[in-house]
Amino acid sequence: MSELSVQIEELCRKAKKASRQLAIATTERKNELLGNIAEALDEGRARIAEANEKDVKKGREDGLTSAMLDRLELNAKRIDGMIQAVHEVIALNDPVKEVIKRWTLPNGLEMEKIRVPIGLIGIIFESRPNVTVDASVLCLKTGNGTILRGGKEAIESNRVLAELMQEASEKTGFLRETIVLIPTTDREAIPLLCGMDKYIDLMIPRGGHGLIETVVKNARMPVIKHYHGVCHLYVHEAGDFDMAESILINAKCQRPGVCNAVETLLVDESIAGRFLPRVARALRDEHKVLLLGDAATSLALGETLKEPENWSTEYLDLILAVRVVKGLDEAIRHLEDFGSHHSDTIVTADKEAGERFLNEVDSATVYWNASTRFTDGNQFGFGAEIGISTDKIHARGPMALEELTSYKYIARGSGQIRQ
Amino acid sequence: MSELSVQIEELCRKAKKASRQLAIATTERKNELLGNIAEALDEGRARIAEANEKDVKKGREDGLTSAMLDRLELNAKRIDGMIQAVHEVIALNDPVKEVIKRWTLPNGLEMEKIRVPIGLIGIIFESRPNVTVDASVLCLKTGNGTILRGGKEAIESNRVLAELMQEASEKTGFLRETIVLIPTTDREAIPLLCGMDKYIDLMIPRGGHGLIETVVKNARMPVIKHYHGVCHLYVHEAGDFDMAESILINAKCQRPGVCNAVETLLVDESIAGRFLPRVARALRDEHKVLLLGDAATSLALGETLKEPENWSTEYLDLILAVRVVKGLDEAIRHLEDFGSHHSDTIVTADKEAGERFLNEVDSATVYWNASTRFTDGNQFGFGAEIGISTDKIHARGPMALEELTSYKYIARGSGQIRQ
Repeated sequence: MSELSVQIEELCRKAKKASRQLAIATTERKNELLGNIAEALDEGRARIAEANEKDVKKGREDGLTSAMLDRLELNAKRIDGMIQAVHEVIALNDPVKEVIKRWTLPNGLEMEKIRVPIGLIGIIFESRPNVTVDASVLCLKTGNGTILRGGKEAIESNRVLAELMQEASEKTGFLRETIVLIPTTDREAIPLLCGMDKYIDLMIPRGGHGLIETVVKNARMPVIKHYHGVCHLYVHEAGDFDMAESILINAKCQRPGVCNAVETLLVDESIAGRFLPRVARALRDEHKVLLLGDAATSLALGETLKEPENWSTEYLDLILAVRVVKGLDEAIRHLEDFGSHHSDTIVTADKEAGERFLNEVDSATVYWNASTRFTDGNQFGFGAEIGISTDKIHARGPMALEELTSYKYIARGSGQIRQ
Repeated sequence: MSELSVQIEELCRKAKKASRQLAIATTERKNELLGNIAEALDEGRARIAEANEKDVKKGREDGLTSAMLDRLELNAKRIDGMIQAVHEVIALNDPVKEVIKRWTLPNGLEMEKIRVPIGLIGIIFESRPNVTVDASVLCLKTGNGTILRGGKEAIESNRVLAELMQEASEKTGFLRETIVLIPTTDREAIPLLCGMDKYIDLMIPRGGHGLIETVVKNARMPVIKHYHGVCHLYVHEAGDFDMAESILINAKCQRPGVCNAVETLLVDESIAGRFLPRVARALRDEHKVLLLGDAATSLALGETLKEPENWSTEYLDLILAVRVVKGLDEAIRHLEDFGSHHSDTIVTADKEAGERFLNEVDSATVYWNASTRFTDGNQFGFGAEIGISTDKIHARGPMALEELTSYKYIARGSGQIRQ
């Protein structure tokens, strides 16, 4: 075993031990810990700023883009935001110990299925250092230990943030290692962490496709992915044009860089000639959206659009791919063939078409006459989320506190044996 | 790409397509399919027997043990059992489309969280050919497609069973490929299947440690493992001796070869000298159990027991490892260090100790004054199970119909856009 591997295993072992303390802590104790974290962040502003300055300086020297430097920066307002987020998590209900089901077996054994923490959760993420705090407090609230591996660009900031949280943990009477940050930026650390299934119960990668691919390829423990969103708006022949345009502009233009923004517009052929010219005008004139489209779309618009290279691209930009379809069946088939099963919406006044779309489209969230932009833990009323799962196992869609729990069965008996 | 890889991808593609048909089928249609499967098995008895004879003959030539040959054999009684199992699954409630939660957002968006099938489920299993039918019908009932990879010993039997189910599928008006069996015994097929995360949504390996290890190492999709059970019975100082003995004998001896049988007995030191001699007598005289133990156990028994090589062995046999502990804390620590978090029980009349054990022991099922042998989907009242998950993600403990579903969010709106 390499030195790094010994070091990482030791950190995992300690983090696992600390996670058992958290697992049986009361809500009051966990909220006390979160309160102390908020206080530590507030009192640690100078330390955070100093560390962050180092990261930003190095980033500048290394030629990071201004967008990357912006994501890296922890100014006073962003620190306020982190602290505010901790207070919001304190205010959320703790799902741990909730009785999901209670029943009695014919032999009198009293059964309960109750929510419990998952255990130790690994978070592997890139650039934005506030994830260190945002992700950790969600895990702590649900009684889970956290082992973090951040991007090398933010290592100094991440270190200080983790230290402040560890100090708060000790102050509250928990072990320091309820939060552990892998202190090295060695790329080998990721595959090594992915092999620690003896300690880490769940891995959540947050970042680009390359990072997610590395984790999926190497992880021996379960992984919940937050992959891309290739979301669709389908305007059915019975769709109201004003509503469709308003939803499309919201879903495409309000925040084009997020996973619940629409990337592809599907339009029924019977209305394409009337709907597409007006919506193209609105998208281009007011919102500078670049349109790509198939031949039928070009025909409907009376101009030759560039065809999209494929129908599975997440543009994350003011670009919209448009395709004309024969009807509901072809629209659903398009989603099956090219969608990412994240969020899709139909605009129609036809109840039967709407209900068929809701039933048959296999996406985490399916909408009828509403914007895909609502796919978000806060919007759904769940509170802060750790991400939006594109998996179908354990957590699907917005992943909030409840999805950070597992369950166990408890059986209270009086000597029952199996016949 | 190799020829095998092309062949497997093609099978996966077809199975995925067929699974979409199943996903939106009504309960009535799925039950019709199951009924036709039961009928096909009944009418296909001669075909099954012929194929099974080939497997058994080859197994004998290859020198399989009599236990292995027994697991391989499909006699008339076992075929009856398979058919019976199909009828039992028909009688179970279909969890698909159940509304888990319903709420309305402040903007009027009507939200539902509903159960949906997972999609296409891969089952990789060994020897016992009845798994081909047992596992498939549970998947079909919950609207999931199944892609199966059985052991080479049972290939002829598996082929005929899969064919009969495929014929039933066609007869019911579904695609043949709602059930797909990988027709080759090439070992390369397993890693290839494990790479098909584009099609397979969940992989369930059922078999020995070697098989599970291969799947865990190679799978890119989520895996739910049914690993081993190192289950414990802990006799607390306030435990009733008669009850403890009765539960221990049931949990150790009733069926020692299963995962919910007890492997380790922990006894409080204050009662070891009185409890151990009587229970040792009962275990040895009546049930021929071999006892292994630590030094304190030997002392309590007044003889020198062989020490167990380690405390994490799943004996699956009439062997019991015994350890004397100082009290509840040490017992819980033992479970954390050496247990497999499957099923553990405490015997005590002390309510506080019982509740602490239930709360603090991190196992899928935790018992107070009852046998660990109850950990089983049928015993819990869930109906047939596909296995007992030792994972903490998605399914923990007995994995029955509900655990073969995912969920999705449905949102019915009237033009809502995000502010």
